[in-house]
Amino acid sequence: MSHFADRMIEAIRRKGNPCVVGLDPRLDGMPDFVLERVRTDDDPAAVATAIATFHEHVIAAVADVVPAVKLQIAFYEQYGLPGLQAFADTIALARSAGLVVIVDAKRNDIDSTAQAYANAFLGRAPVLGRQTAAFDVDCITVSPFLGRDSLTPFVETCAAHGKGLFVLVKTSNPGSRDVQDQQVSSGETISERLAQLVDELGDPLVGTEGYSSIGAVVGATFPAEAETLRQLMPRAIILVPGYGAQGGTADGAAANFNADGLGAVVNASRSITYAYGEASVTPEELRARMRANAASMAEDLVGALARRVGS
Amino acid sequence: MSHFADRMIEAIRRKGNPCVVGLDPRLDGMPDFVLERVRTDDDPAAVATAIATFHEHVIAAVADVVPAVKLQIAFYEQYGLPGLQAFADTIALARSAGLVVIVDAKRNDIDSTAQAYANAFLGRAPVLGRQTAAFDVDCITVSPFLGRDSLTPFVETCAAHGKGLFVLVKTSNPGSRDVQDQQVSSGETISERLAQLVDELGDPLVGTEGYSSIGAVVGATFPAEAETLRQLMPRAIILVPGYGAQGGTADGAAANFNADGLGAVVNASRSITYAYGEASVTPEELRARMRANAASMAEDLVGALARRVGS
Repeated sequence: MSHFADRMIEAIRRKGNPCVVGLDPRLDGMPDFVLERVRTDDDPAAVATAIATFHEHVIAAVADVVPAVKLQIAFYEQYGLPGLQAFADTIALARSAGLVVIVDAKRNDIDSTAQAYANAFLGRAPVLGRQTAAFDVDCITVSPFLGRDSLTPFVETCAAHGKGLFVLVKTSNPGSRDVQDQQVSSGETISERLAQLVDELGDPLVGTEGYSSIGAVVGATFPAEAETLRQLMPRAIILVPGYGAQGGTADGAAANFNADGLGAVVNASRSITYAYGEASVTPEELRARMRANAASMAEDLVGALARRVGS
Repeated sequence: MSHFADRMIEAIRRKGNPCVVGLDPRLDGMPDFVLERVRTDDDPAAVATAIATFHEHVIAAVADVVPAVKLQIAFYEQYGLPGLQAFADTIALARSAGLVVIVDAKRNDIDSTAQAYANAFLGRAPVLGRQTAAFDVDCITVSPFLGRDSLTPFVETCAAHGKGLFVLVKTSNPGSRDVQDQQVSSGETISERLAQLVDELGDPLVGTEGYSSIGAVVGATFPAEAETLRQLMPRAIILVPGYGAQGGTADGAAANFNADGLGAVVNASRSITYAYGEASVTPEELRARMRANAASMAEDLVGALARRVGS
């Protein structure tokens, strides 16, 4: 069984950049050729097929450019069971293309309920003595709002199955100030305390590359906070959302990296997969444009990282 | 379109108690007669059928005893697509039995992603000009960790569709101290600030019964905190987990109610649906025992409420 953080770092080295492409289905934004059957057919299976087809093109376009993809499960859930069928199909496509698969689920709960979520994405569920995998991906995002004991079942499942976590520490939205930026009696912010918790929980899961399978989410939109949080959890891989459509820059995202130029992955969704021009685009044009978008993001980030490491 | 809080209060009055029965599938705890096909058949559909069959019995047993059921979606997700098929089937069974349906999902995210979750459970997703419902229930639990702007899409969707929310304010586990009990610079705890936010967000959604469709989650395991939080959000309906298997008592849960004897619902799962005795139980015995468990919880709570209102 391989180690999540080692697998992630190896994939970043192989592709030469830390970019993650978001696979977030927005049917209304997909090109005409993908939607033909959805327009003419009320069968819910048409929705599942359209999403999987679109993602087949995204994956073919970016699989040799970037190390990982991130599926935001909310966008699949909104389409109900056909959406979740497409979620399972997209995971299978991404895995068979050799990509690291991140699910952005922000799940959490307590006790056996947290264990059930861990079973769903990282482990196995017990079915009368058999063990069955539900969605089986490399890693998921989780919320720390319920505290340390709610994270433990996820950490243990990662240890048992070679998987990884990204714990929300500082999200990219303005509302992250409401809870995460609050200063507590010790003088630290909630985010800073959570960063310490991530470092502590991740301690037993540090791999041969020096990084832990217990990582964190820190938005690209708050570079000053990112510098502090980076210091508090030097061995965490940080998943950085907010680049591109949300206004985060490559230099902002770069604040999440270590001096070795590693330690973070940066996600973009809409600016890669939905910035392809006209709805009448052909399959070949679609792939070429998404590939160019991903390559341009990679170049942007590699440049920012060179400036950071050089500075 | 009816109003969630009015609908909830009306159901509580009609049944004469504020009990919620949890529908949390744990295949390994189900009786033999439900599991026959799962034992002999590797077909994933057997899992979906077993879960739906078990819940058909639960619903038949408790539908005229309690006002509402709560589905913990984690326990369905761990069984993958068959689990989520059973989730959809269980929702349909509960709705057709006239029960208020709560989904315990603790979802949240930012911007359009929060909207996608709201679409999935409370609203409609746009599909090329059509609007499709995914899981369409009365209300869901949401996490406030991402702040006010992450809750807004849910509140707006509730307003548009007559639905409700339960925002996590103080969870029932020991780890709730790690973030929720932290005292911030204003001297309040994070939970207290969140209670004020719930009151504020709920202000435009107060119904004719005086309660808002924006409610809160406060565990039965912390009665002292519950008294304070109750005062800070007098118009919220509070969903109280932790009664029964988690060690919360009826008197502990009663701290979440107002002097009118209303304003909260109390959930129990394992102590109602999995406390039926031997695995060899017959369908008739199963229903009788689950019904007796629910009736006994109702009596316990009604007694505690009488003591609280009388005190």
